[in-house]
Amino acid sequence: MEQNTVERQKQANPTYVYVHAFVEELARGGMQHVIVCPGSRSTPLAMAFAANPAIRVWLHIDERSAAFFGLGLAKRLDQPVALLCTSGTAAANFLPAIVEAHLTHIPLLVLTADRPHELRDNGAPQAIDQNRLYGTHVKWFVDVALPEASNAALRYIRTLANRAASLTQAIPAGPVHLNLPFREPLIPEPLAEAPLPPVEQRDPLAWDGRLDAPYISVSEAQLGIPSDTTLQQLSEQIGKTKRGLIVAGTSLDPDLIDPLTKLAQQTGYPILADPLSQLRCGPHDQSHILSSYDAFLRIDAFVEQADPELILRFGAMPTAKPLLLYLKRYATCPQIVIDGNDEWQEPTQLASAMIHANPLALCNRLLESLPISTTETWLQRWQGVDQVTRQALHSTLQDFPELFEGRVFTELADLLPEGTTLYAGNSMPVRDLDTFFWNNERTIRLLGNRGASGIDGVISSALGASAAASASDSTMGNNEPTVLVIGDLSFFHDLNGLLAARLHKLNLVIVLINNDGGGIFSFLPQATYPEHFEQLFGTPIGLDFSHAVQMYGGTFQRCEQWEDFRSSITQGISAGGLHVVEVRTERASNVSMHRQLWKAVAEALDQK
Amino acid sequence: MEQNTVERQKQANPTYVYVHAFVEELARGGMQHVIVCPGSRSTPLAMAFAANPAIRVWLHIDERSAAFFGLGLAKRLDQPVALLCTSGTAAANFLPAIVEAHLTHIPLLVLTADRPHELRDNGAPQAIDQNRLYGTHVKWFVDVALPEASNAALRYIRTLANRAASLTQAIPAGPVHLNLPFREPLIPEPLAEAPLPPVEQRDPLAWDGRLDAPYISVSEAQLGIPSDTTLQQLSEQIGKTKRGLIVAGTSLDPDLIDPLTKLAQQTGYPILADPLSQLRCGPHDQSHILSSYDAFLRIDAFVEQADPELILRFGAMPTAKPLLLYLKRYATCPQIVIDGNDEWQEPTQLASAMIHANPLALCNRLLESLPISTTETWLQRWQGVDQVTRQALHSTLQDFPELFEGRVFTELADLLPEGTTLYAGNSMPVRDLDTFFWNNERTIRLLGNRGASGIDGVISSALGASAAASASDSTMGNNEPTVLVIGDLSFFHDLNGLLAARLHKLNLVIVLINNDGGGIFSFLPQATYPEHFEQLFGTPIGLDFSHAVQMYGGTFQRCEQWEDFRSSITQGISAGGLHVVEVRTERASNVSMHRQLWKAVAEALDQK
Repeated sequence: MEQNTVERQKQANPTYVYVHAFVEELARGGMQHVIVCPGSRSTPLAMAFAANPAIRVWLHIDERSAAFFGLGLAKRLDQPVALLCTSGTAAANFLPAIVEAHLTHIPLLVLTADRPHELRDNGAPQAIDQNRLYGTHVKWFVDVALPEASNAALRYIRTLANRAASLTQAIPAGPVHLNLPFREPLIPEPLAEAPLPPVEQRDPLAWDGRLDAPYISVSEAQLGIPSDTTLQQLSEQIGKTKRGLIVAGTSLDPDLIDPLTKLAQQTGYPILADPLSQLRCGPHDQSHILSSYDAFLRIDAFVEQADPELILRFGAMPTAKPLLLYLKRYATCPQIVIDGNDEWQEPTQLASAMIHANPLALCNRLLESLPISTTETWLQRWQGVDQVTRQALHSTLQDFPELFEGRVFTELADLLPEGTTLYAGNSMPVRDLDTFFWNNERTIRLLGNRGASGIDGVISSALGASAAASASDSTMGNNEPTVLVIGDLSFFHDLNGLLAARLHKLNLVIVLINNDGGGIFSFLPQATYPEHFEQLFGTPIGLDFSHAVQMYGGTFQRCEQWEDFRSSITQGISAGGLHVVEVRTERASNVSMHRQLWKAVAEALDQK
Repeated sequence: MEQNTVERQKQANPTYVYVHAFVEELARGGMQHVIVCPGSRSTPLAMAFAANPAIRVWLHIDERSAAFFGLGLAKRLDQPVALLCTSGTAAANFLPAIVEAHLTHIPLLVLTADRPHELRDNGAPQAIDQNRLYGTHVKWFVDVALPEASNAALRYIRTLANRAASLTQAIPAGPVHLNLPFREPLIPEPLAEAPLPPVEQRDPLAWDGRLDAPYISVSEAQLGIPSDTTLQQLSEQIGKTKRGLIVAGTSLDPDLIDPLTKLAQQTGYPILADPLSQLRCGPHDQSHILSSYDAFLRIDAFVEQADPELILRFGAMPTAKPLLLYLKRYATCPQIVIDGNDEWQEPTQLASAMIHANPLALCNRLLESLPISTTETWLQRWQGVDQVTRQALHSTLQDFPELFEGRVFTELADLLPEGTTLYAGNSMPVRDLDTFFWNNERTIRLLGNRGASGIDGVISSALGASAAASASDSTMGNNEPTVLVIGDLSFFHDLNGLLAARLHKLNLVIVLINNDGGGIFSFLPQATYPEHFEQLFGTPIGLDFSHAVQMYGGTFQRCEQWEDFRSSITQGISAGGLHVVEVRTERASNVSMHRQLWKAVAEALDQK
């Protein structure tokens, strides 16, 4: 087939743009064989496979035989092989070979075409329920999004292709199932209803991928130890890169603190450390750790000049949205995600590599091979900005005439004794923790529920953390205090959770930031639609929580001044038991004070 | 809220067009209450609910309490109540009340907002796996398609709203879960990337629904007996309608033959009878039964003048695609689907009413109340066209110099003795059966696998049918013969199935239509892409099947003439055992002969 025929097919309509991106990534990821069973609904994928010279098409009529043929091919090659069939019982015929592949760890990428949503479960022909059709006999199932020719959709499908193919090989190897719905036309003909976006709107990374490499290279470390190839490539890449960044997200292994700080020293890369990374507090060297990036990455003037050459990301995606926007802005910068949990903590769809390996082993091996960085311009620029930002935030905070939610965290950073666990509620508290809780030499554990980031169950979670402290402390005193900062809606949601403090005689100081409603929504575009805003989003509940706290045997103190706040916290910690310290704020002025702070940071950086 | 604000919201972007259509249908279907929990991802639905004056919004912070509040409201009202929450653990908090609602049959429509596909399962915040989140505790789960402002998408979401809300009340009543993914922007602001289609492209039925009625009214008959209201409305509607049609699909209860033919007589409506409806063959009155519509509904000149006022549809959707296109063309014509299996055999998304009731009971009650039709112009027109079409097809068929696949069925219609079961394979055979197997006074059972319409397992299915005949016939002779018509790919797919004929000494005459590949694809647009056509779609396998048939102890005869065909069939039936009669055809000439037939029909109708 001539190249220009392929090009015409790739540009025919959104479905073909999408399937060609998918097949292209399979080929770039090293997939060499696909077993195709004839069918109509699977036409776009079949045509795209046939048009790709790097992938050999093996045609089979009987899907049951086809799948076993693919199994044998993959078994002998020790490489992933793709299977493709149309919708309906065709897909059901794959099951016997999939069961066998699952039990014997054969990497099969099972692709079933499906009807689009409007033809499911309503008597359309050859439409069966293909959702999780193979049950527990596949490692992963994705009901893939309908084809679209948008930048976001193309980043999605490229990432998905590389991810799914790699996953078939990850230990334990086995089959992965992608169910791909297609709308008519199934052939590569232009579709008046869905024209392609104009060329100038097309992000080349999304539309063409990385040309000579998979969109995202996935490296699977056997038993957690990264391969020599992976280490050597990474070491070389770091060795020749001055403008690198280390991003430390949530849920990091505490054992990583030391190697990560050493890695920063040796490379001269700053570390952008999420508060829940545990890197911000403790006696370790903090010279490379930046903690005010949530503020300064909002400032265009800085971001424009902070063009990175390499990003190394550890742990889950950090909380700060400005960091996500920074990564999106520098989308073509190589972003390498090191994930020690064999998961896929990569919602940006920008990463160029995923390394599934034990991050501790990886760092230690890297430290052995890396030269020590000598130029510090890049590092000093980031360190300088971090410092100026913190100063600007700090001095602006002092001037606010009323209680400001963010200041809760600068106050706590000064107040909390060594060994404290600070639990941050979701929605605003964890974000203010990020912005306003800077580095600290005391060891303070910063915890939060950032898996699903719900506002539910937060009081109970903090009491559970407190129970751990009391269980490990034979004196039953309050040597390892637990402090929770929580908003009023989240506090209300888990009000019942307070019973545990009484039942189990637990120590907990709760800072209740009460702005009578959902403060985060005032920052979101929903706030520009005043009509139903208070009813649907603001949702004030107007409760005096002191009654409930009294019922559970706690003390309740409302603070009007920061002095009161400080003494309440200190007394609460030393007394033990349950103490609720309420800080009353207003949602509207909270937004305007946050905006004043960003303005102050911009001005400070401007003068620098 | 002023009406024009609502209108602006409805036109803001595809998401808002979509959610407003959804909420509009819930309101038109009688939903009066929604429990809303605050959240960001659920914003479009929350805003649309708040803007709808017919639905009262009850705001709750704690989703667990919210769901139980909805349960109590629905229990006391005995009406469906909707629940709405955002993505993440919010949705998980609904589970306890859903479990209770499931066990006590409370109609809750559970709506959970979700992240779009590109933010699922990759560490994005507040993204959990919401696919079938409530397991077996809900009656139905749908992962709803992402919002779109196309006619098809709007027909889909309107139908889904009415269907899901009704299903909560169908016996046994209980919760139904719709998971709705939304992309940003979540607010009603225009989106440059996704402009709305120009007004002239908008099908009013899709965009506005039916204004004073739900898009599809669902009537749930308790214990199968339709309610007096349903019957009275239907009876009145039929009473005032002359240009009605009865469509009889596949999988009809044989007991329906008599009431349906009576209904046709009494109303003066023709019956378009799918071959698998069992209405085409037998000693019953066939004057109203049309069997050549697959041919004449392709003729624009006829379709343009055949404007129906009412369509009554029984059974599953018929096989003929021209009928589907006819229904789409007259999309605003009321289409009432009577479904006796409490399913949703309605892939057109055009139906105005779904009656879940025993069709036999419904017909019999209707026959009691309906007047007898006196005008016959409409009926005569359809009958005349049916007759002319059959004549044109028949005489054209005689002139073909080579073996034509469709003629297999006109020959069999003449040959098969009373009591024969004729099994038709999927893909082309069942379609040719539809077009060329017309009415027959002998009782011939026409069977096929039209649930998932696979080409797999067809030989085995026909042998199973043969076993039923032999089991019921104590002489073990061949008094109730079974004949299978099957294509070569389908024959190959289940070649192993032939063993059963030998093992269990079964009688089966197989007409193997061998065009060496997938003949149906030559009719599809895939055929206009010659490059990979033979490899991916034509898929010739070039096997001489006589060897395999010999192995299983059958006879194999290749026919060159229709005389040979007739004698082989007759001899095969009388001899008993396994007989394969091969009819060799060519895929390309098969298409051209089909097209000649449509031309002959068009000319014949033109002269009429």
